[in-house]
Amino acid sequence: MSINTSLQAVEELLLSVARSSVPLLSETSQHILSAGGKRLRPRLVLLAHAAAGGQNTAEVVPLAVAVEIIHTATLVHDDINDHGTLRRGRATVNSRWGSTFALLTGDYMFTKTYEIMAPYSAELNLILARAAIELVEGETLQIQAARAGALDRETYYQIISKKTAALFVACAELGATIAGAPGEWIAALRDYAFNLGLAFQIIDDVLDLSGDSQALGKNAGIDLAQGRGIAAVRDDGADARSVAAVQVTPDTAPGPLKESLLSGQSPQVAIEIGRAKAHELVGRALASLEALPPSDARDELQALAQQVVTRDH
Amino acid sequence: MSINTSLQAVEELLLSVARSSVPLLSETSQHILSAGGKRLRPRLVLLAHAAAGGQNTAEVVPLAVAVEIIHTATLVHDDINDHGTLRRGRATVNSRWGSTFALLTGDYMFTKTYEIMAPYSAELNLILARAAIELVEGETLQIQAARAGALDRETYYQIISKKTAALFVACAELGATIAGAPGEWIAALRDYAFNLGLAFQIIDDVLDLSGDSQALGKNAGIDLAQGRGIAAVRDDGADARSVAAVQVTPDTAPGPLKESLLSGQSPQVAIEIGRAKAHELVGRALASLEALPPSDARDELQALAQQVVTRDH
Repeated sequence: MSINTSLQAVEELLLSVARSSVPLLSETSQHILSAGGKRLRPRLVLLAHAAAGGQNTAEVVPLAVAVEIIHTATLVHDDINDHGTLRRGRATVNSRWGSTFALLTGDYMFTKTYEIMAPYSAELNLILARAAIELVEGETLQIQAARAGALDRETYYQIISKKTAALFVACAELGATIAGAPGEWIAALRDYAFNLGLAFQIIDDVLDLSGDSQALGKNAGIDLAQGRGIAAVRDDGADARSVAAVQVTPDTAPGPLKESLLSGQSPQVAIEIGRAKAHELVGRALASLEALPPSDARDELQALAQQVVTRDH
Repeated sequence: MSINTSLQAVEELLLSVARSSVPLLSETSQHILSAGGKRLRPRLVLLAHAAAGGQNTAEVVPLAVAVEIIHTATLVHDDINDHGTLRRGRATVNSRWGSTFALLTGDYMFTKTYEIMAPYSAELNLILARAAIELVEGETLQIQAARAGALDRETYYQIISKKTAALFVACAELGATIAGAPGEWIAALRDYAFNLGLAFQIIDDVLDLSGDSQALGKNAGIDLAQGRGIAAVRDDGADARSVAAVQVTPDTAPGPLKESLLSGQSPQVAIEIGRAKAHELVGRALASLEALPPSDARDELQALAQQVVTRDH
């Protein structure tokens, strides 16, 4: 059974959930929620559910929506902090409506997620609540590291585990748990999602370094300007902001600053090392899937993992 | 049975909940959560519970904590939007740690509330989720009205119903529902809380107009500078910001602007009308309590309502 029908239901529910009795909040929420995006997290919920033998799509769709809304809420708040102007190919909420309404739009989405989840079991609510806590903690660590000008590998992995992989894990766990999967399958899907999440974020950071804003649909270079990302692919723990400096002026000749901070490693080399690491993680993710019985959904999870490392936006 | 022991448990749980694996978030959350405040909402949860015959304080305390944390989260975010520097007698999170970490601190508190509530029933989760949605909607409406420079009585009541009374109602409903109260008692406590919430906010706005920052423990005049408050006590629906202008320069001689906008009504008169309206609402709140059997908790709810209109900070 394909998840396409469920994904369509996700889109519809996303927009209906965004409706508020306050027209401005409907407008801002729908602006960002209707802009599409990869819908990777809802897909993961739906595919984990199907791969674990789940049949009841009506009960899993709101979980996929809840995850996407909480993810989007954090993007709206990130864009305030980063002064981002472009997101999912559209003007950010903060650039169009100002940071005050962007802040309230993110808060609105947090509270709507909570409302969507209310009818579900304590177990499912705890899964999502704890992932959301980790997400906020990961964002905080990232900004602290950027400001401190120090982002070693260990801190980088701590950050991306919390800010990205934790929600991926929650997606898999929500889908598999509501499907009534045995513990072994849930564990396999958690492992898959954790490694996929790390790989996804490393590639995101690599694309931020190498990509252009138009293809990405968001501002390129911001992550690195904020000191994120490239520490994944450095082994010496040196200041990641060095690469941001290179990114900001991509055609600069090698100078003393660049040389001292990159420790002789060019951005191109860093990118290749990052891609290698992502491929390794995807390999682990694929291996985890072998604990599951063969199914169309398992095939799609495999394909999804491969897309994560080959995508260019 | 007095609620003092439970209130002590609320304080302890508040601080333990604020602990994060990210030290900065522990620091910012504890800074604002340990600053005290009136704890009106936790009191309301505990008193509604006791007045409805609830005995199990262990199960009601986390509900009181959840409500206080969500309330505090919105204060932290409000202070970003208002550029407030003083809250509960301390530096605001935004003034001490900057708006980026204040934003994340508020988000952290939203997600912690969600975690605390996860073990409770869908019914209780929906009560709090919907109040939280209304709270954010009320804040949004308020800022829109302020920017539009138009705050008529109807809009003012819509705003304070959503941003203040909705959470008061949720407090009463959470406490009474988990106590297993009959529907009639829950309805009476809801009515009590709704009218109390409106009265509380009107007095808050009156104090903002008349009070000084030191006694209030937060910046006085900000609410009015933002266009809030005094519309409660105007009958003509004219621009509330007029009074803010008076407040900002309290000793200005009557001038053409003031005359035209106040429509001949002095701030002192507006304050008295506001107080009268709050007393009327408190009268209604007290009348609702008569549907409940006599108890110490009911007496305390009566006293609480009277304190709301006589408080000076």
